[in-house]
Amino acid sequence: MPTTVSIASERLKDCVTGIFVGQHVPESEARIVADSLVEADLRGVSSHGVVRVPTYVAGLKNGSINPRPRLDVVVDLGPRAIVDGDDGMGQVAADRAMRLAIERAREHGIGAVGLRRSRHCGAMAYWAIQALAADCIGFATTNAGLNMAPTGGRDKIIGNNPLAIAVPTNRPWPMVLDMATSVVAGGKLDVAAIRGQKIPPGWATDLDGNPTDDPVTARKGLLLPVGGPKGYGLAVMLDVLAGVLTGARFGGGLGIPGSGQFFLAIQVDGFMPIAEFRDRMDQLIDQIHQSRRAPGSERIFVQGEIEYEMAQRRIREGIPLEEPTVDNLRRLASEAGAPSPT
Amino acid sequence: MPTTVSIASERLKDCVTGIFVGQHVPESEARIVADSLVEADLRGVSSHGVVRVPTYVAGLKNGSINPRPRLDVVVDLGPRAIVDGDDGMGQVAADRAMRLAIERAREHGIGAVGLRRSRHCGAMAYWAIQALAADCIGFATTNAGLNMAPTGGRDKIIGNNPLAIAVPTNRPWPMVLDMATSVVAGGKLDVAAIRGQKIPPGWATDLDGNPTDDPVTARKGLLLPVGGPKGYGLAVMLDVLAGVLTGARFGGGLGIPGSGQFFLAIQVDGFMPIAEFRDRMDQLIDQIHQSRRAPGSERIFVQGEIEYEMAQRRIREGIPLEEPTVDNLRRLASEAGAPSPT
Repeated sequence: MPTTVSIASERLKDCVTGIFVGQHVPESEARIVADSLVEADLRGVSSHGVVRVPTYVAGLKNGSINPRPRLDVVVDLGPRAIVDGDDGMGQVAADRAMRLAIERAREHGIGAVGLRRSRHCGAMAYWAIQALAADCIGFATTNAGLNMAPTGGRDKIIGNNPLAIAVPTNRPWPMVLDMATSVVAGGKLDVAAIRGQKIPPGWATDLDGNPTDDPVTARKGLLLPVGGPKGYGLAVMLDVLAGVLTGARFGGGLGIPGSGQFFLAIQVDGFMPIAEFRDRMDQLIDQIHQSRRAPGSERIFVQGEIEYEMAQRRIREGIPLEEPTVDNLRRLASEAGAPSPT
Repeated sequence: MPTTVSIASERLKDCVTGIFVGQHVPESEARIVADSLVEADLRGVSSHGVVRVPTYVAGLKNGSINPRPRLDVVVDLGPRAIVDGDDGMGQVAADRAMRLAIERAREHGIGAVGLRRSRHCGAMAYWAIQALAADCIGFATTNAGLNMAPTGGRDKIIGNNPLAIAVPTNRPWPMVLDMATSVVAGGKLDVAAIRGQKIPPGWATDLDGNPTDDPVTARKGLLLPVGGPKGYGLAVMLDVLAGVLTGARFGGGLGIPGSGQFFLAIQVDGFMPIAEFRDRMDQLIDQIHQSRRAPGSERIFVQGEIEYEMAQRRIREGIPLEEPTVDNLRRLASEAGAPSPT
């Protein structure tokens, strides 16, 4: 298992921002991407953190990602809109689309914004959480790279499309669920591969549908949907929202290029005063926290709590990154004339 | 295992309608409830079918269910609304709320309608499917009776809250996902109990969190969430929508009495022409159907297909009901002066 290096989050953000600026991404947009990636590392979601930087840079270098997209609103109908991501970085487009969903929710009570010709945009929790400052419930989903088969099949037709939902509360931590529709996120296989670890049975199969404990074989093979037909069904429905409805790529890759996302913001005020809603959420959270514990359990967590506590600790102590990841960042930073991560 | 009796669906609907009319439910509303229950039996979802009739009748008899509710729209804000179910039958209120969501989606492009002071309203697929005739994508969720603990806990704080999503296609069958957030629906334990069957490990525990294969012990105990923290998290978030946001009961039972539901309709037209959307759905469905099969798999199904084929067969051949269920219906029909099921 490789050793880790502890890096201050702000230094890491500056490094990653500089790397993307070196690829002709405007600085304000590079900073959005860097913030989303480093925030994932802070929250312990290393599969969606700066480990992705080399892939993004490769896309910028080979021209498949547009460093300076023009983000047109191509459908604009009150609470509904579609943004064209112009093949730019996914986070830049997602930032625009989620802001628009929130703006429309403030105006109409609800805002539903699709995104087409987009790219990987990091952890979906990051986007759902944006709704909280506007006292909205936030939803964010994307169609992911193809890595699952339908139940009973063995062709990669669907991604393990994730869904994030964030809810306003009185707590200091953002209450947010962010779940992939596979048993585990694909990035967990990458992390296992970097760490030289085997994976447990039930996570994935090889390309022919046979069980495997090797993360590299599994990454080329098929992730297994959570709960079998339930995870498969939810993944398809999220592809319908993020891909089919938005005019983006969907299913096995038909349609115009690029992945799609779908964002929804629901204003709480109107349904009930936000203060009353937050109090009701407090009651719900208290009930969960105060549940008697199951044998062997030390504590009961509400969605988002583990990640917040991790982030608080990593803000103080730095983010532990694997050496190979740090080496990649050092090399890319040096190429770009960006601040080194260490 | 008890023997089954095959009953024609129309005869069953007339019987169940008559039973509720005998409890002072207006006939048009009794027919809505009967239709939702028999439709579930037709689709093979017997856990949400006429097996529920005795429980509903008991509620009407003891006064906990109001046979003649006044269904006021208590929040009315463009695309958003809340209906007060007035403690009536859940299906009667759900019918009103889903119609309103569709009406608002036609007017504003999206409609989000909450329901408070409601009751059990049958299978959620039934409500999501209502959106299809209006060329909308339909969502329906409810907070269920409390039957799960948070991950790490053993108090019943949450239900295995289900989510249904239905999508317009060119196919003759409604494409619909209807999933509970437990590994299996609670009604499956009832069905196993009636049939005298054991349940597999991983479905449920006893009240103290110990594994059990006895459906009666499990029904008093705890259902296990699908995918562990994922099912737990999704159940909580659906309770936030169906319970906290609507002003209904939520969590362990705080707030005003009655369960809550949340319905959402998204108009496809505007995002793109409905014909184009249906064509894109055709491509997605074809891709799934044409996937190479996994070893041992005979066929790959899209969401809603199995249930539709079952319904087509049962419309022709009748619905097989367990003798104890038929006996209950015979007795209740006789009491109410309703048509006998046999």
